[in-house]
Amino acid sequence: MKKYVLLLVGIAFTYQSLQAQHSAASPRKIKHIIFMIGDGMGTTQIYAGLTANKGWLNLERFKCIGFSRTNSASDYITESAAGATAFAIGEKTYNGAIAVDTARKPKPTLLEIAHQHGLATGIVVTTDITDATPATFATHEPLRDMSAEIAADYVKSDVDVLIGAGREHFDQRKDGRDLLREFSQKGYQVKYTTAAITAVKKGKLVGLVKEERVAQRGDQLLQTTRTAIDLLKQQEQGFFLVVEGSKIDDGGHANDLQYVTEEMIDFDRAIGAVLDYAEKDGETLVVVTADHETGGLTISEGDLSTGKISGKFSTDDHTGVMVPVFAYGPGAEAFMGIYQNNSIFTKFMQAMRFVK
Amino acid sequence: MKKYVLLLVGIAFTYQSLQAQHSAASPRKIKHIIFMIGDGMGTTQIYAGLTANKGWLNLERFKCIGFSRTNSASDYITESAAGATAFAIGEKTYNGAIAVDTARKPKPTLLEIAHQHGLATGIVVTTDITDATPATFATHEPLRDMSAEIAADYVKSDVDVLIGAGREHFDQRKDGRDLLREFSQKGYQVKYTTAAITAVKKGKLVGLVKEERVAQRGDQLLQTTRTAIDLLKQQEQGFFLVVEGSKIDDGGHANDLQYVTEEMIDFDRAIGAVLDYAEKDGETLVVVTADHETGGLTISEGDLSTGKISGKFSTDDHTGVMVPVFAYGPGAEAFMGIYQNNSIFTKFMQAMRFVK
Repeated sequence: MKKYVLLLVGIAFTYQSLQAQHSAASPRKIKHIIFMIGDGMGTTQIYAGLTANKGWLNLERFKCIGFSRTNSASDYITESAAGATAFAIGEKTYNGAIAVDTARKPKPTLLEIAHQHGLATGIVVTTDITDATPATFATHEPLRDMSAEIAADYVKSDVDVLIGAGREHFDQRKDGRDLLREFSQKGYQVKYTTAAITAVKKGKLVGLVKEERVAQRGDQLLQTTRTAIDLLKQQEQGFFLVVEGSKIDDGGHANDLQYVTEEMIDFDRAIGAVLDYAEKDGETLVVVTADHETGGLTISEGDLSTGKISGKFSTDDHTGVMVPVFAYGPGAEAFMGIYQNNSIFTKFMQAMRFVK
Repeated sequence: MKKYVLLLVGIAFTYQSLQAQHSAASPRKIKHIIFMIGDGMGTTQIYAGLTANKGWLNLERFKCIGFSRTNSASDYITESAAGATAFAIGEKTYNGAIAVDTARKPKPTLLEIAHQHGLATGIVVTTDITDATPATFATHEPLRDMSAEIAADYVKSDVDVLIGAGREHFDQRKDGRDLLREFSQKGYQVKYTTAAITAVKKGKLVGLVKEERVAQRGDQLLQTTRTAIDLLKQQEQGFFLVVEGSKIDDGGHANDLQYVTEEMIDFDRAIGAVLDYAEKDGETLVVVTADHETGGLTISEGDLSTGKISGKFSTDDHTGVMVPVFAYGPGAEAFMGIYQNNSIFTKFMQAMRFVK
């Protein structure tokens, strides 16, 4: 009898150790998603930023890498509205669409679905929050230039934290509405400087700052991203946060390499803060990608020790090339390989177990 | 007592099933390595090829993706000799070096180390086999244009299968040597057409065909890659094979997009055959990457249904951008992330357990 007991104990131990190994390999729980979009950030913009940053970027901390095929339903070369709508609603649509399908029908977005599941939600950008990329996550309009309608949609959206530029679309309106007053009446704190935004410690927040280049705005994206995380993580069920490095795209349109690299490095600094949080938290899935490449940038020369770089742009518009995807945290493996941009929606839905 | 027996049987079953799951996640044995280099193949060349191929490539079959930082020891922008030497000997060196370090000292290459460990070895390219990329794996010279010396090095190299162009460097030499005769005397079969090469069923082989574009050479790279695998896999200890899509680079230097895409698609066809083999074999690690980007290519327009594409080149030379790495099979996970080109050597060494 004693022999059997010893055998049983032995087997139980082995079983337990195997089970521990097994569960280490199994997907960990995903509580938070931070989805970071570098607008216009192709492979070349990243490597230009890495060079200008004297040879390193936080993006090097990612292991799981994929490529997103960016074409829209209407065009081989997308723009930001169709590009981000593919992420937001899981369907390729026509260029210019804000979270509506090819039949112009509004479709639920990742952020809205997360909200329905009890998650806190947020959007942090460095451009107008009525611009195409942020708009596709929380508003629905047939055309990206309908800024007044997009701003009004935000008031109905229940997004917990909204930070960006474009105040004029909210309080200097043709229809006479004061949307910032409406936000206040709904319980939002409304702030107008980075200092005021970062001073908010709980509750709902609309932060509307000036749209500026890095030299003027400093580490605004880093600070406001941290603030958004600090506010949203107070929600017990988790959160879904979109962060956009909005102006890498502007540098590409301007064919200004200095502009591209300073925005790239600024975005990467926010990525570093997000990774620091995700590493400590252990339940955060971080995905970084782009909607498309902007400028047709190539790198003619560089110096990794001084950060000097020269390049050429082939267009002041977008190009068709696939763009990298970087993923970290539980569920990151799903973002490996080459796939369509709208698959990113599906991967997030599966990661959060919003689909069976 | 019966109860205990049932319990034991139950535990044993669970143990077995957990163990099966665990070993599935453990690294499998790596017997063969196929290292495929698309010369001049950046992200844009790949997506241009995918577009011209009407929306798909075999590269989409890979899950593990990384980026290789291509700068050489001497220059921000590498050329093929320093680029491939970094892979071959694990050290960044000066532009123009063929498997020698910055002090011009010859260093053992991956292929030579594999040979020392009893593996069969092979090189298959579509350019002269004395060209920089293939040369760095089996020859050692201070400068890439020393074709006569490189050809003579090959005779001493013990490479089992050598297929490419450049016959004149072997039998029309200033020093009067007939290296093809020397190869024959060493027991090599020497063949001069794709048909003659693919007819070889065992033994050592030197295949020297004409250097031609895809329109003329047809599926030569696909056929000769298959032949190389069929010959090398007869070695019980395994094999190390280098395959180069050599002329994507030529298309870039010529600023000829049609040239780039036809070479890209041709290389991808060989990749498909290699993946087919690796999938069946289960013990083959396949890694596909580039030494650098060529031409500063950007994609201005395209049509995924017709394969029409237009692009712009910013230079007739190489550019500095990091290039993608694709890995499949046992050990593929090591090739994820962003790293230096010479790390690829270390990753292979570790994969093959050549280093402790």
